[in-house]
Amino acid sequence: MAFSWPVRVYWEDTDAGGVVYYANYLKFMERARSEWLRARGFEQDVLRDVHNIMFVVRRVEVDYLAPARFNDALDVSVSPARVGGASLVVEQTVSRDVTPLIVARVTAVCVDAVRFKPVKIPAFILQTLETAP
Amino acid sequence: MAFSWPVRVYWEDTDAGGVVYYANYLKFMERARSEWLRARGFEQDVLRDVHNIMFVVRRVEVDYLAPARFNDALDVSVSPARVGGASLVVEQTVSRDVTPLIVARVTAVCVDAVRFKPVKIPAFILQTLETAP
Amino acid sequence: MAFSWPVRVYWEDTDAGGVVYYANYLKFMERARSEWLRARGFEQDVLRDVHNIMFVVRRVEVDYLAPARFNDALDVSVSPARVGGASLVVEQTVSRDVTPLIVARVTAVCVDAVRFKPVKIPAFILQTLETAP
Amino acid sequence: MAFSWPVRVYWEDTDAGGVVYYANYLKFMERARSEWLRARGFEQDVLRDVHNIMFVVRRVEVDYLAPARFNDALDVSVSPARVGGASLVVEQTVSRDVTPLIVARVTAVCVDAVRFKPVKIPAFILQTLETAP
Repeated sequence: MAFSWPVRVYWEDTDAGGVVYYANYLKFMERARSEWLRARGFEQDVLRDVHNIMFVVRRVEVDYLAPARFNDALDVSVSPARVGGASLVVEQTVSRDVTPLIVARVTAVCVDAVRFKPVKIPAFILQTLETAP
Repeated sequence: MAFSWPVRVYWEDTDAGGVVYYANYLKFMERARSEWLRARGFEQDVLRDVHNIMFVVRRVEVDYLAPARFNDALDVSVSPARVGGASLVVEQTVSRDVTPLIVARVTAVCVDAVRFKPVKIPAFILQTLETAP
Repeated sequence: MAFSWPVRVYWEDTDAGGVVYYANYLKFMERARSEWLRARGFEQDVLRDVHNIMFVVRRVEVDYLAPARFNDALDVSVSPARVGGASLVVEQTVSRDVTPLIVARVTAVCVDAVRFKPVKIPAFILQTLETAP
Repeated sequence: MAFSWPVRVYWEDTDAGGVVYYANYLKFMERARSEWLRARGFEQDVLRDVHNIMFVVRRVEVDYLAPARFNDALDVSVSPARVGGASLVVEQTVSRDVTPLIVARVTAVCVDAVRFKPVKIPAFILQTLETAP
């Protein structure tokens, strides 16, 4: 069971083609990743201020299969594919009902929040991300 | 002669109503204010890092007269209406050819960049903003 | 009792000043207005496709009292101030706990969805907006 | 020589991490693709209204090598990698001076503007995209 987060499509998300603008799905996916971390007990401002780390996106691959439209009720999933060292790879989908509209693979890197250099993901995070559903 | 900055409307700016989304005109107006300051010799990162000040918006009044659309070539004007103490009021329009689409009045406050408390606009800025066209 | 809608602040909403970018509060306010209409039984895509009307923003006045930051849990209120003819004025606040950060007044106009010309707000909408809390 | 389009980083583009928000580079890349088409004589509103076609993004791969910051003057390149049938693959970079910050590969599909079904890229576009630098 992947983690899933609901997202409603508002006017701000759409473009004059009548569909959600392609960059905005990356916002939806980031909201879901933030909520996925929160659901596992990790607040990103605490990670930054107390533990001096941030997760920054290093690579995205996104396939746009079908468009979402104004007022759609979407679900955005987060499923860890590989966690280890300084990096974290998650697979994400944006779906309407059971239809996947977007399929993506996002690689994030754990960095020192001041110097922006990669550092190992702390053990207390690693353990939770590896074992939580 | 008010300062004017060109803005092209891209897909990102529009919504499913086929027009520019109402919040995005505030982005256009901020771009024009940033370029207006730059044209007068003030880079905001230097103001923050060297002079420890930032301008933050305290109030906006915006009248939406007519919509802009995808591909429109717009002009965004900046005209100081009142400069003094810690605050700066500018009048701005967003126009297509000579037709004003948006008319706005924006009040910004000069703040200490660390504590976010209002401080007097430094004299070297005040003099330039009062005398430059 | 005003209608209220929760909004979480994500990375997308913030800027390099460490606070929510000033235009993005207008997105939050539009989300709350969309949900306020939905809670009263009005879906904007149905209003457009079946009843041939849209509400477009004609004027906003926004006072920025204090900044919101990453991860803040905000509440956005909608309270109708005046409904009549073709126009609708709502008062909105964006608050964190009980502290108002943003106070706004938004005027929307009911327009023909094809020709974008003002038309009277239909009676079935007017009655609901006047009587619902 | 790839086509290149200048983009200035404004407050709207940044996030509370002090850098450009990862989704916003996709806006920069779309602006450059729109200007690349315009420079070759193709206005997208004319393509839609007269020729009944649109280009929609089918896939993006983006590598984030280094962050851009407020006030940076960036260059966004567009270089066609493969043009044929209904699809168009372009390689894009976002650079500051000569340093590439972002490297991307974007696949767009030519679709019928009404039914959103893939159609062959018209010959008059294909010829220009294949021969123009």
